[in-house]
Amino acid sequence: MANVNRRALELGTQRSVIRELFEFGKKRMEEVGAENVFDFSIGNPSVPAPDTVGETAVRLLKETDPVLLHGYTSAQGDQKVREKIASSIRRRFNYPVRPESLYMSTGAAGALCGCLYGLLNPGEEVIVFAPFFPEYRVFIEGAGGVMKLIPADIEAFQIDFERFENALSPNTKAVLINSPNNPSGAVYSEDTIRRLSKMRQEKSREYGQVIYLISDEPYREIAYDGVEVPWLPSIYKNTIVGSSYSKTLSLPGERIGYLLIPSELDDFENVVAAANCANRILGFVNAPSLMQLVAARCCAEKTDVGYYDRNRKLLYESLVKYGYTCVKPEGAFYLWMKAPVDDEREFTTKAKDEEQILIVPGRNFGCTGWVRIAYCVAYETIQNALPGFERLAKQYGL
Amino acid sequence: MANVNRRALELGTQRSVIRELFEFGKKRMEEVGAENVFDFSIGNPSVPAPDTVGETAVRLLKETDPVLLHGYTSAQGDQKVREKIASSIRRRFNYPVRPESLYMSTGAAGALCGCLYGLLNPGEEVIVFAPFFPEYRVFIEGAGGVMKLIPADIEAFQIDFERFENALSPNTKAVLINSPNNPSGAVYSEDTIRRLSKMRQEKSREYGQVIYLISDEPYREIAYDGVEVPWLPSIYKNTIVGSSYSKTLSLPGERIGYLLIPSELDDFENVVAAANCANRILGFVNAPSLMQLVAARCCAEKTDVGYYDRNRKLLYESLVKYGYTCVKPEGAFYLWMKAPVDDEREFTTKAKDEEQILIVPGRNFGCTGWVRIAYCVAYETIQNALPGFERLAKQYGL
Repeated sequence: MANVNRRALELGTQRSVIRELFEFGKKRMEEVGAENVFDFSIGNPSVPAPDTVGETAVRLLKETDPVLLHGYTSAQGDQKVREKIASSIRRRFNYPVRPESLYMSTGAAGALCGCLYGLLNPGEEVIVFAPFFPEYRVFIEGAGGVMKLIPADIEAFQIDFERFENALSPNTKAVLINSPNNPSGAVYSEDTIRRLSKMRQEKSREYGQVIYLISDEPYREIAYDGVEVPWLPSIYKNTIVGSSYSKTLSLPGERIGYLLIPSELDDFENVVAAANCANRILGFVNAPSLMQLVAARCCAEKTDVGYYDRNRKLLYESLVKYGYTCVKPEGAFYLWMKAPVDDEREFTTKAKDEEQILIVPGRNFGCTGWVRIAYCVAYETIQNALPGFERLAKQYGL
Repeated sequence: MANVNRRALELGTQRSVIRELFEFGKKRMEEVGAENVFDFSIGNPSVPAPDTVGETAVRLLKETDPVLLHGYTSAQGDQKVREKIASSIRRRFNYPVRPESLYMSTGAAGALCGCLYGLLNPGEEVIVFAPFFPEYRVFIEGAGGVMKLIPADIEAFQIDFERFENALSPNTKAVLINSPNNPSGAVYSEDTIRRLSKMRQEKSREYGQVIYLISDEPYREIAYDGVEVPWLPSIYKNTIVGSSYSKTLSLPGERIGYLLIPSELDDFENVVAAANCANRILGFVNAPSLMQLVAARCCAEKTDVGYYDRNRKLLYESLVKYGYTCVKPEGAFYLWMKAPVDDEREFTTKAKDEEQILIVPGRNFGCTGWVRIAYCVAYETIQNALPGFERLAKQYGL
């Protein structure tokens, strides 16, 4: 044990349950056939990347000098890439962004780590709302910070403001939100964002220090029924946005995203410098070069939200019909469902062992009694899994 | 200042002089034309990636289901990719490697950070030999460790063993070497490696604890005049190898490499687990997926070493002719030259201002009085820069 970093081992051997289920699923598929395992464990998009993504990559590979194409870029990312993406953000959100505000990152995780390792001094707190993506804890604690978790608002899966207000302290460095939310599928309304911002602003003034809002938004483009996902920097100026093309262009394995640090942020220059430093310290060097160019050229492309919507409707309507209590997803591709028994692990284990259905216990997202079903799968996977869900419902007397 | 991580800012604003020269060069080229700037600042390979790299990427993009091609892989890397690379290592070095020993990484920097953050507890020491790649300090200190620098052996640019022996202590966690060396171009001989290993083994026994050898070898394939680069795990069993396809396949911007943790390593399971954890904590998720497949299919390809060799000969012979004192490079693509004045920064500034020649002061590599010339450039760049080098030599009365 003394041979390795004890903290790393400790943080990391609280293994990623999601990743473990994913690995288990891969293995099980080899044993019993892919069609007999219903893997709802991981947010691996099932919609293929838009055709233009592949076509653009092929064109770049054929037409660009490989020395330029595969060479180092500036640490912050290729200048032209950042210009293109900045201009697309200006158009889409009617919000002024200069390329200097963009930092091309190795996926959203790279963006978040760059931001958190850059901002946090030892012991400083980041407020996170349950249910939450479990890697947040790993990243925050890895960066030397403390995660303060606000229990879920299990009615609307918006925010429990009373608890939030009580959690704010002079030690609060940032509030980290994720909307559309993984795992709940909820989208924070503009009203929620405005209340959140107002409270934070008041406390900022009271404590005489900035409280940053970090918005992790890989699912921004995936919203249903015309739901609007508010653009946060227009509401709260001290917002830092982490984004990624993993879900919107279906490129999760390629690790390409960006960090947006608006120039009107308090202490802008230092925050940019710190993010730069953090990226260097962590060993990222630069975001993958070919994919930087692909992202810049395809950033106006949209994933086929209709595909996920079809899955969403089939799954939600069927589960409700079987008697389950579900949050109707407004965005992302996760369905958040109440387990039919207090200890949701009993349910997820039974689902796995008896029905080959892989779903994630809610406690991994800081919310016991619930489960997450990632429906970014083939439509047939849902169709074929439904009888299993129905049998489970009956077993539990729903 | 209080708004950001002071340590990150401090570490990072000891800016990367190399990166700054590189940025300066890019700008200057826009102003005065690329042909009038002689940028020897950065190790950006000038040999294009082998044709098969582009062809393989195009074929994968055209023939593979994009959901699989661009999807998440296992954190450790795609299983088949690791099998292929393991088998290539077995063949090349006659050394038994299982896929479980390989961790596909986001470049060599990602491999090193995974390893260092995984191994180091606060205050533990890593011994590094000058001249050294300056990011080592950033990575080691970022991981909470202490870098102990052994001054250069300025005769042969091998290792000053007396100083090394004195530096070993019960606090020594690892020794980090880089051969072929950046910046000196030296290759550590088998004799050097054996002496190094013997000393470490004796101290290991004396202190009752493992001292790991971390071998950063992005330049392994680039050696000249038949010089052999010893395969370290066969000499010292507690060797961890960090490798990359940046230089050998000319893909530095794509961030693809691997960490090799031999299964006979002391505490193998824990070291693998800790590297896994570190990669997770740092936010790498998985090495870029398309490039994992490209690397596995092209790992037998070799870069055109003859191209660099031609540059090396022209540059080395000319500089010696002008009266400069140079280390004759045995590997990598750096020429290490004594500045014609004690403060080498005077020389590099003059070279930049008067001759548009960008070279890096040796103090950035822990060795004042010397300069690094990266000759991974076009042959013409060297030809056109030589008159400038000659004029500088004359100015200094060489």
